[in-house]
Amino acid sequence: MKIVTLCSGGLDSTVLLYFLRHEGHEVVALIFEYGQKHKKETSYAANKCDDLGVLRHHCYLDSPVANVPLMGKGEIPNGYYTDESMKKTIVPSRNATFLSIAWGVAINKNADAISFAAHSGDHPIYPDCRPEFVNAMETALRMGSESDMRILTPFIGKDKTAIVKIGSTLGVDFADTWSCYKGEKFHCGKCGTCSERIEAFQLSGVKDPTIYKE
Amino acid sequence: MKIVTLCSGGLDSTVLLYFLRHEGHEVVALIFEYGQKHKKETSYAANKCDDLGVLRHHCYLDSPVANVPLMGKGEIPNGYYTDESMKKTIVPSRNATFLSIAWGVAINKNADAISFAAHSGDHPIYPDCRPEFVNAMETALRMGSESDMRILTPFIGKDKTAIVKIGSTLGVDFADTWSCYKGEKFHCGKCGTCSERIEAFQLSGVKDPTIYKE
Repeated sequence: MKIVTLCSGGLDSTVLLYFLRHEGHEVVALIFEYGQKHKKETSYAANKCDDLGVLRHHCYLDSPVANVPLMGKGEIPNGYYTDESMKKTIVPSRNATFLSIAWGVAINKNADAISFAAHSGDHPIYPDCRPEFVNAMETALRMGSESDMRILTPFIGKDKTAIVKIGSTLGVDFADTWSCYKGEKFHCGKCGTCSERIEAFQLSGVKDPTIYKE
Repeated sequence: MKIVTLCSGGLDSTVLLYFLRHEGHEVVALIFEYGQKHKKETSYAANKCDDLGVLRHHCYLDSPVANVPLMGKGEIPNGYYTDESMKKTIVPSRNATFLSIAWGVAINKNADAISFAAHSGDHPIYPDCRPEFVNAMETALRMGSESDMRILTPFIGKDKTAIVKIGSTLGVDFADTWSCYKGEKFHCGKCGTCSERIEAFQLSGVKDPTIYKE
């Protein structure tokens, strides 16, 4: 299949990129700059695509969906990734936006599907990573374009620990992925996505090559 | 209600702006620059918002959904607006993208709804203007954000002739709206949206103040 996949430069979407290639698909990556504080993730995404010889397109989005910590307004909360406080890291309607854009790109490229790396660890906090949202969004996008493409989410039933194991098997160099929402020199080791990353390596038994600030 | 509405500077969305204000709603307008050949429509949108004292936000989107005539790749077709050839004027997944962004903005602004000016004249050609798409999209967006906002489409059962009549009643200066896909100095009078505009004025009995090239 030809698949347009969202690629953030994070651990999950990087493993998805490797996974889709390993399954033999032709992959086109979409990398979004939308005002995120951790924009440095996009250079990790670009590098991984180039390493794999995957065609990448960058999308730039400047909209007033900016009144949130992840986009510079307020502090990124520290804590465990399923804490209620992690809801502060929601960017409203982000996946709906990214999937809608990816769908349009996929139509123009005569692709068979789009994909993104939603996983079960996201479900408690992020409603736009849950299976029921993905199914509803697929229905809407198909209807709005008279297309029979699919939204593929191979990791939606897996947690980050399982994703680390898959990535390890596929030879992903995790040092070249970026998770931390704070976007500083090193991973902070304290924010929700850092704490999930640390836990995933611990539980998977895969060595964590990440340099954490604390 | 507080409503975030898509505003292109075209006839339909301008009448919708007047209509929502007339109904007593607090309106926030979103104006999109997405690489459209007729980008000049956005200055008409901005002017109308300023005339009405409506808060406006501009959204800029640069993505590779550009392989279509409306965005500079190939000629805009002339003809009647329900002709099969008008499918060339589709920008894949455009309304899904715009609605998803508007939804995120509406959440951040604590709005009650988003709206856009889909109408029955759009239905034959544009699947993303049909009621079934709007309903499916609303379901997906609500699910993806745990929100109970609505997508309002007050014109979805009306044709452009009816919209012209409503606009006339509300005092819309139609000379300050822009429809033509070609985006040249004057409306071309030949493309699908120009032919629909001309017909709507003829059938409504409202004087057409538009200067057409031909």
